[in-house]
Amino acid sequence: MGMDGGRERLVVIGGDAAGMAAASQARRMKGPDALEIVAFERGDYTSYSACGIPYWVGGEVSGPKELIARTPEEHRARDIDLRMRTEVVEIDVAGQRVRARDVDLGAESWTSYDKLVIATGARPIRPDMPGVDAPGVHGVQTLGDGRALIDTLEGTRGRRAVVVGAGYIGVEMAEALINRGYEVTVVDRGAEPMSTLDPDMGRLVHQAMTGLGVTMVTGTEVTRMLTGDDGRVRGVATADSEYPADVVVLGIGVRPETGLARAAGLPLGAHQGLLTDRSMRVRGHENIWAGGDCVEVLDLVSGQERYIALGTHANKHGQVIGTNAGGGYATFPGVVGTAVSKVCDLEIARTGLREKDARRSGLQFVTATIESTSRAGYYPGASPMTVKMLAERRTGRLLGVQIVGREGAGKRVDIAAVALTAGLTVEQMTALDLGYAPPFSPVWDPVLVAARKATKAVRDS
Amino acid sequence: MGMDGGRERLVVIGGDAAGMAAASQARRMKGPDALEIVAFERGDYTSYSACGIPYWVGGEVSGPKELIARTPEEHRARDIDLRMRTEVVEIDVAGQRVRARDVDLGAESWTSYDKLVIATGARPIRPDMPGVDAPGVHGVQTLGDGRALIDTLEGTRGRRAVVVGAGYIGVEMAEALINRGYEVTVVDRGAEPMSTLDPDMGRLVHQAMTGLGVTMVTGTEVTRMLTGDDGRVRGVATADSEYPADVVVLGIGVRPETGLARAAGLPLGAHQGLLTDRSMRVRGHENIWAGGDCVEVLDLVSGQERYIALGTHANKHGQVIGTNAGGGYATFPGVVGTAVSKVCDLEIARTGLREKDARRSGLQFVTATIESTSRAGYYPGASPMTVKMLAERRTGRLLGVQIVGREGAGKRVDIAAVALTAGLTVEQMTALDLGYAPPFSPVWDPVLVAARKATKAVRDS
Repeated sequence: MGMDGGRERLVVIGGDAAGMAAASQARRMKGPDALEIVAFERGDYTSYSACGIPYWVGGEVSGPKELIARTPEEHRARDIDLRMRTEVVEIDVAGQRVRARDVDLGAESWTSYDKLVIATGARPIRPDMPGVDAPGVHGVQTLGDGRALIDTLEGTRGRRAVVVGAGYIGVEMAEALINRGYEVTVVDRGAEPMSTLDPDMGRLVHQAMTGLGVTMVTGTEVTRMLTGDDGRVRGVATADSEYPADVVVLGIGVRPETGLARAAGLPLGAHQGLLTDRSMRVRGHENIWAGGDCVEVLDLVSGQERYIALGTHANKHGQVIGTNAGGGYATFPGVVGTAVSKVCDLEIARTGLREKDARRSGLQFVTATIESTSRAGYYPGASPMTVKMLAERRTGRLLGVQIVGREGAGKRVDIAAVALTAGLTVEQMTALDLGYAPPFSPVWDPVLVAARKATKAVRDS
Repeated sequence: MGMDGGRERLVVIGGDAAGMAAASQARRMKGPDALEIVAFERGDYTSYSACGIPYWVGGEVSGPKELIARTPEEHRARDIDLRMRTEVVEIDVAGQRVRARDVDLGAESWTSYDKLVIATGARPIRPDMPGVDAPGVHGVQTLGDGRALIDTLEGTRGRRAVVVGAGYIGVEMAEALINRGYEVTVVDRGAEPMSTLDPDMGRLVHQAMTGLGVTMVTGTEVTRMLTGDDGRVRGVATADSEYPADVVVLGIGVRPETGLARAAGLPLGAHQGLLTDRSMRVRGHENIWAGGDCVEVLDLVSGQERYIALGTHANKHGQVIGTNAGGGYATFPGVVGTAVSKVCDLEIARTGLREKDARRSGLQFVTATIESTSRAGYYPGASPMTVKMLAERRTGRLLGVQIVGREGAGKRVDIAAVALTAGLTVEQMTALDLGYAPPFSPVWDPVLVAARKATKAVRDS
């Protein structure tokens, strides 16, 4: 029941990718006469690409404006009642209303809803250690974080940087700092960087990053920040050693921001993300949807829920939610776990399950690792590429692919992403009709070479 | 029945990709004690990449050696009795033997077989017109052709070139000649270049090639070669006009080389290619296989046979044939018609059916064409890309994709190639978990954007 007569009210919590994609799509489905849309955002920006922050810091992107897909004004022009710097502090599920607080003035008020979208995003993991709040220690999750880091970099004109964490954000920040002329040290507690890869593939990243001049310190936990007399950070300490730094970047990843949902009694999963059905509706709740970095997603390969904070998923969720909240029908079937990244000219990609994911899912598997090239070996610019493939024992179903290489390596993972979605076996993959011409691929694409080797391994399993 | 006791004899006709891949794989399956392998090649080279010839001519590849994957000596070292410059001139199917002629000496002899592989390849379409045999008119199908063309280019030091035909070979040769410093004119009888694309996408190629400085003459047939007093070519004539040239390259494509098979009574299809079953066995013949540029292949999208001369298919055929001829089991299920090419920095790709293919197959369809970018719009080097998608009316099954763009456009077609193989609908494609990071893709990959638009078109159909 809406506020006035037949008009329903859709309330959206969170003004970034998932929330505003949902709002925009709902508006496309239903005009303002049929649907009122109110969106709350506690920060200063809407619909921005957090994934682009490393490139802004690195100087490839000139300013934060370029990372903003749509401004508050643009949303308002589409009849979305967007309330900036307004934080929702309570969801009253039984009463179908939310309590919002003006961030600057502190004033609070209740807003009722017919339909609710929760898109509260993620919050950075900020390790609880001495000195972590010292000036010069930076996270990189929000545009504000990016601005603050750039101010530090430009203000201090240091030359040494430590990045804590060697996952996607960590390696991308390593590149950004290299581009800024810094000597970069990356410290990670894992035995190899990029724990989203198997360690044997992570080792290739390790070697390549060392080759790029990055000091890699792995298997080592940062225990505290070192600070100077002025209180500013001057390095990081591990159990064994100290690493001087003029700036420290925390690239440890994020957790779902679901305190609000938890307090409201909404269902959370093992990773503390909201649990939804295929239409992105919060389980057990007819009129509440959730999407983006605050939800868990179904992994189509393992059949289990995972937590993946990624803009491309958030946009898809928003699209699906907006369609459904607008009275249409759409689903988000799940993910296969594709991710791609680069550090300078090194490209890193993965999709599906790692060895430990497969084991954890009760899947027995074989692996095949091959080296090939991005183009025909004789064609200029052909660069080496390592492809690792996991296939289920006996059935031969593809379970995962990891690729480390140079130009042309990263997006090749899409071949495997589609194959995983379709449930192809590695033997079926050997016959895939992939694009071939000498500037684009060897006559056997690296993915096909891996599929052939994996097929052999399956036969022997 | 083999020549000596239990040893079988496998005879291979043709020493290029399909034939020698079959021979090599059969040898891997069975040692020389169990299987004798005799291969006949009428030319001077084995296992070479004809697809690489344009890059040799263009100077990206320094010599023909780099295009040879395996030399006759390397094949012989693997116990393959390879007879170079020896042409098979007759297949006696009933008698299980082939008659071969020494190309230089003319001597002929019969060789019996237990199993036969026909890999006679293709021959260039050489239009029957006045002057086509004049010095300075070149095909580019064989390494010998490449050598002859390079000799002409280096010997004459001309500055104007005409390429007849604007298909894959034509546009690749245009690039090669640009790289050699030539003023290039491409003449094609089609309304737009790249008739393997729909005309609306071909138009984009037309514009881009004009932008590269190529003079495009379309909708026009070359009627004869113009020759000088010395007999050398000096241009081409069309019905309306004349185009001066110091060298003319014929890039009109190829036909299956199946005269031998036809004379032996083996089954040919509508395109004059040999017809095989899924194990690449010639239909109706237990012990004869055929593969590579002399066969027709099943198009998995239309369900009809097509003719596609492409090294990547030839290699797969050879692999399958060798496995089967060696006593194992493998199949080549068919193709979806993927092809990728480039001319300078323009990338051109297609897979599946064009509009006219779909109509010819009795399929009703909708189309969607979108423009997007190769990377996040804000990321340096993001280049525009046009994606056209065909989907079956009502069912929404993907039927085909065509892409024209710059860096990153070509291999994106692989996403669609796998989706076609798996029979995905365009709506299923909208949820594909493709690799996303700003240097690799916008948050919605161009293929996803096209799938979304096509989904809408299907709903309205």
